[in-house]
Amino acid sequence: MAPTRPAFARWLGGTNEITRMFLAAGQVPGLINLAGGLPEPSVYPAAELADLARRAAAEHPGETLAYGPIEGLGALRDAIARRHSTPALRLARENVLVTSGGLQGLDLLGKVLLEEGGIIAAQAPTYLGALDAWRPRLPTIRPLRLEANGFDAAAAFTGAQFAYTVPNFSNPTGRLVPLAQREDLVAAAHATGTWLVEDDPYGALHYDAAPLPRLLDLSAGAAPGAYAGPVIYMGTVSKELAPGLRIGWVIAAPEMIAALTIAKQGADMCTSGLTQRVVLGAFETGLPEAVLPAILATYRARRDALLAAMAAHLAPWFTWEVPVGGMFVWATARDPGLDTDALLARALAEGVCVSPGSAFDPEGRDRRSIRLNFTLNPPEALAEGVRRLAAALRRSAAA
Amino acid sequence: MAPTRPAFARWLGGTNEITRMFLAAGQVPGLINLAGGLPEPSVYPAAELADLARRAAAEHPGETLAYGPIEGLGALRDAIARRHSTPALRLARENVLVTSGGLQGLDLLGKVLLEEGGIIAAQAPTYLGALDAWRPRLPTIRPLRLEANGFDAAAAFTGAQFAYTVPNFSNPTGRLVPLAQREDLVAAAHATGTWLVEDDPYGALHYDAAPLPRLLDLSAGAAPGAYAGPVIYMGTVSKELAPGLRIGWVIAAPEMIAALTIAKQGADMCTSGLTQRVVLGAFETGLPEAVLPAILATYRARRDALLAAMAAHLAPWFTWEVPVGGMFVWATARDPGLDTDALLARALAEGVCVSPGSAFDPEGRDRRSIRLNFTLNPPEALAEGVRRLAAALRRSAAA
Repeated sequence: MAPTRPAFARWLGGTNEITRMFLAAGQVPGLINLAGGLPEPSVYPAAELADLARRAAAEHPGETLAYGPIEGLGALRDAIARRHSTPALRLARENVLVTSGGLQGLDLLGKVLLEEGGIIAAQAPTYLGALDAWRPRLPTIRPLRLEANGFDAAAAFTGAQFAYTVPNFSNPTGRLVPLAQREDLVAAAHATGTWLVEDDPYGALHYDAAPLPRLLDLSAGAAPGAYAGPVIYMGTVSKELAPGLRIGWVIAAPEMIAALTIAKQGADMCTSGLTQRVVLGAFETGLPEAVLPAILATYRARRDALLAAMAAHLAPWFTWEVPVGGMFVWATARDPGLDTDALLARALAEGVCVSPGSAFDPEGRDRRSIRLNFTLNPPEALAEGVRRLAAALRRSAAA
Repeated sequence: MAPTRPAFARWLGGTNEITRMFLAAGQVPGLINLAGGLPEPSVYPAAELADLARRAAAEHPGETLAYGPIEGLGALRDAIARRHSTPALRLARENVLVTSGGLQGLDLLGKVLLEEGGIIAAQAPTYLGALDAWRPRLPTIRPLRLEANGFDAAAAFTGAQFAYTVPNFSNPTGRLVPLAQREDLVAAAHATGTWLVEDDPYGALHYDAAPLPRLLDLSAGAAPGAYAGPVIYMGTVSKELAPGLRIGWVIAAPEMIAALTIAKQGADMCTSGLTQRVVLGAFETGLPEAVLPAILATYRARRDALLAAMAAHLAPWFTWEVPVGGMFVWATARDPGLDTDALLARALAEGVCVSPGSAFDPEGRDRRSIRLNFTLNPPEALAEGVRRLAAALRRSAAA
């Protein structure tokens, strides 16, 4: 008889299959996927990126093909620092770590700040990928209910290793954290010493209003020298150029960048120089700025199409707010007895996939909400998806 | 007064700065770097890779620019499975996980198998990067002294979550594990149930003899279906194509691939589709096979040049064995009182960098050995580096 294999680590028992189901659902013919957080593929500037990729390897073989600095190519770190600097916010190369996609920053942050059971104060509901990234450290998640009356940021931050927020068009809710609350969050970080994560993959995707100041901006002190405040800002090219490049970055105080760099050394040694050079070339040629207007026009029209279909078909069952940016609409059932986990199964049978609220609750208890993505599908598919969801709801009501 | 920041995780206190020092040393003008494990940059097929990168993004924008499957592109997983299969070893797509460089496989393995204090039986001395990858899990390292008389693999494996070996031209020693011992290791893995890692970045770099069977081959059972044995094989394109692509892979039983996939989902979501497609294109056009003869000729000549210089200048102080492959010569001081950590400081002052043995000892106690790399520098630089090292040794002896 074969001997028993060693046990897998305990945290694997707590994982969910939602993200994998989403990625797999993208391959099912005929299924309308409103569940994932995927961009519209036609917005990727493929021809420009192809040319940049050729030139990167041909003209910069040393930087693109050899092992590179753990922290990222110096020129790319400088470019990222420049792009995020303002007259009031001085960022230097030592404030920047290039990561293998935005998610890696969350993994590295968990590694450098969390012992087993360590406390994360996380905006609730919470980005699923962040929960996945931290789970191997077995953290304690303290929900930050930013929209609750009387929310006290300093009390919520006390004792936490870090606070996690998505102030711009949060995943999953699409919520834009208002300026006064941004100021409260930064003040609480300064008062308590707790690190404050500003995860900002969606910041460029604003459809109705000008962007608000970042937590990073609000936390910049008057002291000379490079930024040394409590905010840990995370960016990515996944929404404005292409997620397949897997390039993100962390902007933070140099002491935090140094710690994350040690963690990155043991995670993947360095990010591909080829994809880093492609992104640097895109920045140098203004490619993100060139493609953004078309992306915004596409996504704004799709948001409006989804909202129109929801108003026509889902109003008896759900309420929602109009998101002014991002990729998602968050809808909450009028009837607290409607179980959105059960709805997902019926929706799949009708040929549409949505994200159940339970996926964004560290304890998996939210069965009353769903997240609908509007960036991946054209308007007619969004409308058909909503019709299928309504059919699933009618079937639920009849059951 | 500013409040105290939360403490960093304990494991950060145990990190070493050796790898970062190596990477930084590569930037110091005039320093001869015999310390790192870097390939000769001119062996990278830059023109071919530039063309493959352009075609990948232009002809396969969906695969290269979008989010892809966590496990890697299906076609690349199939190609890796085919390249490693033999008539006696059946590998399928579900045996393969694409990783962001070979090192990521070690990070993911630590995540899925290690609780705090979990035991790793690791070939000693041990690859520095592996120690870096596991350190966030605070493991217990049990040294496997494969070359010791009476080494008992089954006893060494008992109670370990996994055993870690580099059978082909080990880093740091350059040692080739002989066939009889490979059979012992596999038998011990079968007998104890312990997973057996075969980390194989150097397997193609053999200069004097034909390769030996892999542990993966030796562990293939007679059962039908995809491989389900105890070996976890790790490969990379970093030595045969270019490390800057950051493409590696894990081959293992499907249950292990499934666990590693969950860990990868939370680590970086997926590896860049662009670099994956470049590697797939290189495999399809036979690029690794086309460039390998020139790589082997270059590295063989450099190994011989290093050994000749060592024989001329280092024989009074060190003994060593001729490595039949790989990238390194491991030398041990004749005088047990020679402190190779102290030697490193003197060597840097003379303008040469070597790796001290302490870097490859989980407890940092080996002060009698050094590792010399022969792949990065041309023969005349290798000779000059050895002369500088001899000057540092004369200075040590005089001190």
